[in-house]
Amino acid sequence: MSNHLTQVNFITPVQERIFEVEEKMRVQTDGHNPELGAALQHLLSSGGKRIRPAVALLTGGMFGADPEKLVTLGAAIELLHTATLVHDDLIDGALLRRGIATLNSQWTPAATVLTGDFIFARAAKLAAETNSVPVMRMFAITLATIVNGELTQLFASRGIANQEGYYQRIYAKTASMFELATAASTMLSPKDDGVVEEMRSFGYNIGMAFQIVDDVLDFTAEQATLGKPVASDLRQGLITLPALFYLDGHPDDPEMQSILRGHFFSDERMDRLVNAIRSSGSIQKSMDVAQEYIDFGLETLQKQPDCPERTALDELARYIVNRNI
Amino acid sequence: MSNHLTQVNFITPVQERIFEVEEKMRVQTDGHNPELGAALQHLLSSGGKRIRPAVALLTGGMFGADPEKLVTLGAAIELLHTATLVHDDLIDGALLRRGIATLNSQWTPAATVLTGDFIFARAAKLAAETNSVPVMRMFAITLATIVNGELTQLFASRGIANQEGYYQRIYAKTASMFELATAASTMLSPKDDGVVEEMRSFGYNIGMAFQIVDDVLDFTAEQATLGKPVASDLRQGLITLPALFYLDGHPDDPEMQSILRGHFFSDERMDRLVNAIRSSGSIQKSMDVAQEYIDFGLETLQKQPDCPERTALDELARYIVNRNI
Repeated sequence: MSNHLTQVNFITPVQERIFEVEEKMRVQTDGHNPELGAALQHLLSSGGKRIRPAVALLTGGMFGADPEKLVTLGAAIELLHTATLVHDDLIDGALLRRGIATLNSQWTPAATVLTGDFIFARAAKLAAETNSVPVMRMFAITLATIVNGELTQLFASRGIANQEGYYQRIYAKTASMFELATAASTMLSPKDDGVVEEMRSFGYNIGMAFQIVDDVLDFTAEQATLGKPVASDLRQGLITLPALFYLDGHPDDPEMQSILRGHFFSDERMDRLVNAIRSSGSIQKSMDVAQEYIDFGLETLQKQPDCPERTALDELARYIVNRNI
Repeated sequence: MSNHLTQVNFITPVQERIFEVEEKMRVQTDGHNPELGAALQHLLSSGGKRIRPAVALLTGGMFGADPEKLVTLGAAIELLHTATLVHDDLIDGALLRRGIATLNSQWTPAATVLTGDFIFARAAKLAAETNSVPVMRMFAITLATIVNGELTQLFASRGIANQEGYYQRIYAKTASMFELATAASTMLSPKDDGVVEEMRSFGYNIGMAFQIVDDVLDFTAEQATLGKPVASDLRQGLITLPALFYLDGHPDDPEMQSILRGHFFSDERMDRLVNAIRSSGSIQKSMDVAQEYIDFGLETLQKQPDCPERTALDELARYIVNRNI
């Protein structure tokens, strides 16, 4: 169901491999309790852009890495991503993701925790099947980074809203996994550490941009497109870049001040705040930051040899700041 | 606080290394939120016999594996064990473990899930630091085995009580981690696959015995020693080997029948059942099975070269069936 991307050019060079990644993810659910199997199938097929595996496949393809191993790596990364979403939804108490009921809304916490653990375990097993110590090490470090980020967020006192904390959080949540996709796939190729570092940097930059654009879309897209209420982050007290820029310009906004103090208030007051942020310059400022990350990433990408995969990665990076979902 | 074992001979050859394992576990908690750090310190220092690291250190020591890597492996295994306990306690809703309040009883589910994930991540990172693909692969497979076992248990319909299911469950829960301790430590030595397999078998057998004895002690020990109510498994509807043997001899016992149907009943009726099991031959039958596993394990161990570590592993195996905690 990667229908968001199938019409997009950059996916073409790796479309067949993406299907293999999805098949590899699917077989991880075999041979288990039917109820669990059905839930896993549902989770794994419920959309998602498969952008992380696409990044890994294109990067590794650019450097001549073994396609089999790239498919394994792509499946490991997408499963890691899925596992973090399952535990995240439990932690947030989210009932919908991509407009579809979360596992958490239908199962007990116990089943949800274990299903997340199960997917983690399968992801780690696939990472091990790449047979590469550096890849496995980076996989473990990325997992640690993601969980640290979630813990920091959980323990963070309300009222702390600054850009440094925001960038740390989106690095842990999103950019770290894009780094894994680009660096680990390069590690599976004959390229040296210098190229690994360049591609890690590319992954970092497009990953940061990806999350900033996600956070912008949370304000600017329609509820039907989002599959959840507009500005759901802010409604849960989570302050992302558009709100941070707005706060810079409106330090005394009463609703912002309430959120900073951890207070909640009526939907009407929230809607007013959301509209104020939407119509302020904060959206454009946030998009400008995302574009800077993309420009920086593209600069690094240009150092790599010209080939169809590089062209596709270039398009993918530009797509990140031009998408509307 | 490994006071249970410090007076036991088999720990002597690796006592210093056990301290290094504990220190390595401890440093994994540094540099984080103080509240999380304190909780982790509490978790990691709250007893436990460190028997899994001891098994890994002795096995690897027997074959001349790098002591540094063995300490890293031992810490990875003990952290994996700790992480599964944290998620287990959440799943069981347990309020006490080893007589100490569980994280779960004091924190929100979100914090408990993430703390377990954090410890998993640290364990995976340490496993990666062994720099061994086979060790990392086995680590990932063991994680998958443990989680599968928990999921099977969670989804199992009540009323299914048979020895096959019991042995599968204790393999997933306990023996798989002993296998990891013995096989992975052998993998870090210059020994070939045949020896790895022999030591895996040794780990499997002592691990199976370890859990059976744990399940026996749950019936025979005093509440003060257990740090939780006697027969707490049965009180939660979990049927272990002593109860299975009792059921064989008393298929119509009304309380056993109620448990099989998932019904709960008064403490008085439960106490009657627990006393009936305690005074039946089921305890001895269970211990005989544990002893068979130990004998089989010892037979395999005798194939290895005679050395202080082999003697210590021999003592450790005998201790498993002779301990009272």
